[in-house]
This record gives sequence, structure tokens and C-alpha cells, in this order.
Amino acid sequence: MGSSEEEVTLLGVIGSPFVCRVEIALKLKGVEYKYVEENLSNKSEELLKYNPVHKKVPIFVHNGKSIGESLVIVEYIDDTWKNNPILPSDSYQRALARFWSKFIDDKVVRSSWKSVFTVDEKWRLKNVAEAYESLQFLENEIKEKKFFGGEKLGLVDISAVYVAYWIPLIQEIGGMELLTTQKFPNLYRWSQEFVNHPIVKECLPPRDPVIAIFKGRYGGRFVSK
Amino acid sequence: MGSSEEEVTLLGVIGSPFVCRVEIALKLKGVEYKYVEENLSNKSEELLKYNPVHKKVPIFVHNGKSIGESLVIVEYIDDTWKNNPILPSDSYQRALARFWSKFIDDKVVRSSWKSVFTVDEKWRLKNVAEAYESLQFLENEIKEKKFFGGEKLGLVDISAVYVAYWIPLIQEIGGMELLTTQKFPNLYRWSQEFVNHPIVKECLPPRDPVIAIFKGRYGGRFVSK
Repeated sequence: MGSSEEEVTLLGVIGSPFVCRVEIALKLKGVEYKYVEENLSNKSEELLKYNPVHKKVPIFVHNGKSIGESLVIVEYIDDTWKNNPILPSDSYQRALARFWSKFIDDKVVRSSWKSVFTVDEKWRLKNVAEAYESLQFLENEIKEKKFFGGEKLGLVDISAVYVAYWIPLIQEIGGMELLTTQKFPNLYRWSQEFVNHPIVKECLPPRDPVIAIFKGRYGGRFVSK
Repeated sequence: MGSSEEEVTLLGVIGSPFVCRVEIALKLKGVEYKYVEENLSNKSEELLKYNPVHKKVPIFVHNGKSIGESLVIVEYIDDTWKNNPILPSDSYQRALARFWSKFIDDKVVRSSWKSVFTVDEKWRLKNVAEAYESLQFLENEIKEKKFFGGEKLGLVDISAVYVAYWIPLIQEIGGMELLTTQKFPNLYRWSQEFVNHPIVKECLPPRDPVIAIFKGRYGGRFVSK
């Protein structure tokens, strides 16, 4: 694979951690791809054609065949291009990687996002408590390891790009503390290691425009300090 | 694998579609296992030990190593016992199977459940609309195929056990119509094929006790006709 006949396109929007996951996976594999920026308030025909179900990004198109859902796409990339494996080769370790990736999507993303972007203060605080609880699980999981995947980036690291890069952004917008070295020393240390990884660094969107986008898009709904 | 040294245990509760998924996968593979019924109002030490994160079933324990999350478990079973493959061998087809399984969990399960067990009528009707919309996607997906997996049961069929067996139960409790031959002829035809598959039949819990459990557990919260 990886020959010049491959046509690889990624439909995304700037500032999406889910799109960023796919970019990290592609760059880890050294796959050349065309990136197309979507406008979510005026979705392209291509987006509607390729993802009629959720009509959301990322959409990954490989030789005309499209796939949605970031974690499904990352697994497909790992299945298709075999160099620099993203999932562990051991089936039990692979199951754990899938479990923790799902945990991040189900528990960490939602609660931390709602810790900032929830108007009702009672609900917001409930989400803050859930965010702390779920981040504590990741803190216990990373322990002294360099990456969740061990010495190299793996599926859980890629899933957790949201934790490493987006949580610091949204906690700044909300004027609150979620991921700090005091609260979660190992996870914080991992986040620094991760965002400074050369491949990851290339994929992260610039800070200030993303903060501006989030403030603009959710400005009326977020709870200030 | 599959030798007499294997120790395979499934922690579950009667009436859980998620536990049922794991049982179907195990029986498709012909894996012998010990089933342990959990009491969710008085969780066992074993459950808390094996799934400290979500403290919920199913938990699958293979030679002392535990895994949570039904779809993660089913993929692990397919990775470990190679006979009667559950996931397609083609990587694009495998991605689609994962996409639709996630779609069932994210869209179908939640909306159909809330179509019955939601007190607020406005929210309940919003969920009914979402349930119809998401079932329509499955209707379009199954088309004339015998199973989602083609001629044989696959991952999407196993995920959709909830659609085939639980939706008819909860629509009866709620006195409403979700999955009927009028509304979704192909999906309904599939559901009949599926629940009558000899392996599936063995795994389905008895109807009346499950209805009684749901009425008892959620009786105060469901909206009657």
C-alpha cells in the first residue's frame, strides 16, 4: 500500500479533536492525504454524500470509499497501512486500548466539555465532578509510562489528544482547572510529552484561533469564572 | 486456543442485551464458559474488582484477565477464537461493521429506550422521532440481505440483538409501535430471521420475566399509552 495510486482525502474542520486524531494516525503512517476544510453551517454535497448518517466530520475517503467516526477511521488506517502499528499486536492489550478509547469518548470528552459549556451551575458542577473522576482513571492508567501505548504512541494516546490539547484550551476559556500538574501529575506529564511529539505537533491546530472559534460558537453558553 | 486449560467467565444480569451479545459471540465460537449472575443493587466484589471503571456488566474474564464493554468483548472473542469469524476479513467492510455497531449503541439504543421510558411527553416524542430516523438507516442498510453480515451472522447482527428482541419488548411495555413490518419491512424480516437463528435462540432471555423486570425497575418512569 501507500503507492501513488492511493487517493486519500480527509474532510474536517479546524479545531476538531476528532479530525486531529485522524491526522495524527495518517502522519504516523506517512500516508499522503488531501485535507478539505468543511463549513458545518453549510455542509458540502461531498460531506452529505459520504456521511448521510451523522453528517459530521471527520470523514475519511480512501479510493472513493468513505468512513465516519474517528476511532473507526483510525483502526481502518492501522488495518490498511501496516507500518508503525497503532493498536497493540496482543489481543488482550488491543481490547484494553479499545476500552480506554471508548472510555475517553463516553466519559472524559462529554464531562470535561460540559464542565465549561453548561449554563446551569448545578449541572455544570456535576460535570466537573465527573470530569475529575474520569481523569483520575486516566491518571491511574498512565502511571509512569511514557505513553499509554508504552514507549510509542498508540490508540489511547491518539484518542486522548482531546485530553492533552483541548482540555487545557477549554479550561482556559472557562477560567477553571481540570488538567493540572497538581491534580493529575502523571497525566499532565504525559500531556506535555504528547503535545511535543514531533508528529503530534504537526497536527495540532493553532491555539488562539481555536479559542476564538470556541468562544464565538459557544460564547453565549459558557459559564465564566 | 479453546483447550481445556481455558477459563472463561461471563458476569451478567438477566435481561441485558449487552450481556446477550457476548453470549451469542461465545456460542458462535463454541467456547465453553461459566455464567455468573450479578445483582446490580448489591454488586459482587468480583464485579468491582474486574470493572472498577464502570462497575457494570457484561464483564468477560479470560484466564484471569478481564474486559468490559460488550463490543470490545465481542471483538476480543473474535480475535482470540478464529473459527466462525464475526468481523469481515476485508478492512473496509470491517470499518463499516464497526461504524454500524457504534451507530446502534449511540443512536438506536438510547432513542428507542427513551421512546418508552421518558416521563416528559415532549422529550419522549423527540426520542420517538429519533428512533424512527435511526431505524430507517438500518432498514436501508439491511435491504434484501439475510443478515447484516451477509449469509452469516456478523458484528452488526450481534450488536443489533437489541433491535430484534428488546425493541419488541419495550414497545409492548410502552404500548406503541417502533419496529413493525409496516414501518420497516426489511428490518422486521431480518429481526424474525435473527431471533430464530438456532444460536441466537439459545441466548435470548425468556420474554415474560424480562418484561416483568423492566416494568418493575422502570415502572414508575414509563409513559403508558
